[in-house]
Amino acid sequence: MRYAVLGTGIVGRTLAGRLSGLGHEVVVGTRDPATTLARTGAGPMGTPPYAAWQAGHPGIRLAAFAEAARDGEVLVNATAGQVSIAALTGADAGHLDGKLLIDVANPLDFSRGFPPGLDPVDRDSLGELIQRTFPGLRVVKTLNTMNCAVMVDPGRVAGEHHVFLSGDDADAKKSVRELLNSFGWAESAVLDLGGIETARGVEMVLPLWLRLMGTLGHTDFNFHLQGAEGSGSWGGH
Amino acid sequence: MRYAVLGTGIVGRTLAGRLSGLGHEVVVGTRDPATTLARTGAGPMGTPPYAAWQAGHPGIRLAAFAEAARDGEVLVNATAGQVSIAALTGADAGHLDGKLLIDVANPLDFSRGFPPGLDPVDRDSLGELIQRTFPGLRVVKTLNTMNCAVMVDPGRVAGEHHVFLSGDDADAKKSVRELLNSFGWAESAVLDLGGIETARGVEMVLPLWLRLMGTLGHTDFNFHLQGAEGSGSWGGH
Repeated sequence: MRYAVLGTGIVGRTLAGRLSGLGHEVVVGTRDPATTLARTGAGPMGTPPYAAWQAGHPGIRLAAFAEAARDGEVLVNATAGQVSIAALTGADAGHLDGKLLIDVANPLDFSRGFPPGLDPVDRDSLGELIQRTFPGLRVVKTLNTMNCAVMVDPGRVAGEHHVFLSGDDADAKKSVRELLNSFGWAESAVLDLGGIETARGVEMVLPLWLRLMGTLGHTDFNFHLQGAEGSGSWGGH
Repeated sequence: MRYAVLGTGIVGRTLAGRLSGLGHEVVVGTRDPATTLARTGAGPMGTPPYAAWQAGHPGIRLAAFAEAARDGEVLVNATAGQVSIAALTGADAGHLDGKLLIDVANPLDFSRGFPPGLDPVDRDSLGELIQRTFPGLRVVKTLNTMNCAVMVDPGRVAGEHHVFLSGDDADAKKSVRELLNSFGWAESAVLDLGGIETARGVEMVLPLWLRLMGTLGHTDFNFHLQGAEGSGSWGGH
């Protein structure tokens, strides 16, 4: 499969690296490749410059959003939530219609400092906003409730823990389930919440997640829904 | 200990019954006891009328908010979140200053139907709003992330799962820990998130919780934070 991962931060790199390691063809999308490659300083979270990362991943191509979206059969939104719509608008020139978009982003709003708020929030979500703005995409929200290292390697967290799915297209969710399985997520760990409007619930977990990160002092944790096992309601949704 | 449980719904009744069963003196607070006792129909969720419940709990007195708050050494806010401030304003005539208030409410806003939104949300929370409005109270937010039957009997959910604490007063949180222990919560199951501003995170879990209730078709579930055990950061905060 050919994946276009939109976003060059640590989340995009982690997903791109994992997908490439699984044998997929991966192109990373950015607003302006020349600008991205010219950066030499560390990012806000101490992330090394993209060029340094790319040197270690020569098989992963960097392209403008539109070119990446054109070449990818499946798109992954790993941009910062506040710029996701702008990024996808740029990508739209590459024809998004009909494609699966896996949305792992959170609409964190740092405009008033830390801790961030969310925008949109409560009666809306980034997942819904993307689906509404680009109705031709088949949007599946997933993986946004954990650190990116856990996304692609759930075994980093000992014991059972869960990943959620939200989306309106059953076939799209089935494809995402298979991808999650290939990352190491057991079938029983994937919890289908329903339509894309359920993205509200998983995005609104972020304030608690950020607080837990601060209290624990690490990011190798995740939520496990205790008491879900007996219901038998999860499989195959 | 003398507890005043504010709110006559299923959450208030469950907490009042459990506290009474543990040997505490319990008074339940309501806006107007005569009105509450005169109701004969079931509540919106099929809850039996209060008078029927009280008949089975003759040791638990019903009183107006101010009288309940005056008599209780510890207060429990189990009112609907949208009326909590009004209820506490009524209770304030009974002198709230210096008392511990255990806030288990969620600011669910059903004004636009189901699923409810939250108000306040994102940059504020009900827990903070209560603390700000009644600075003499020592507010501890806890237990709001689960069904009330699980609050008072964590063994209903098999395996390990967690309850959170948010509050500015260390002694108040210590008292709440002890109460939680008496409900059956192990010391390791109680996760102290920090100050009352962390109530934002736990209140914003509600949209996901409500969705899970719908998908699972039951309420005997709770969140377990997988990966927290190794940190050693929780105890004694």
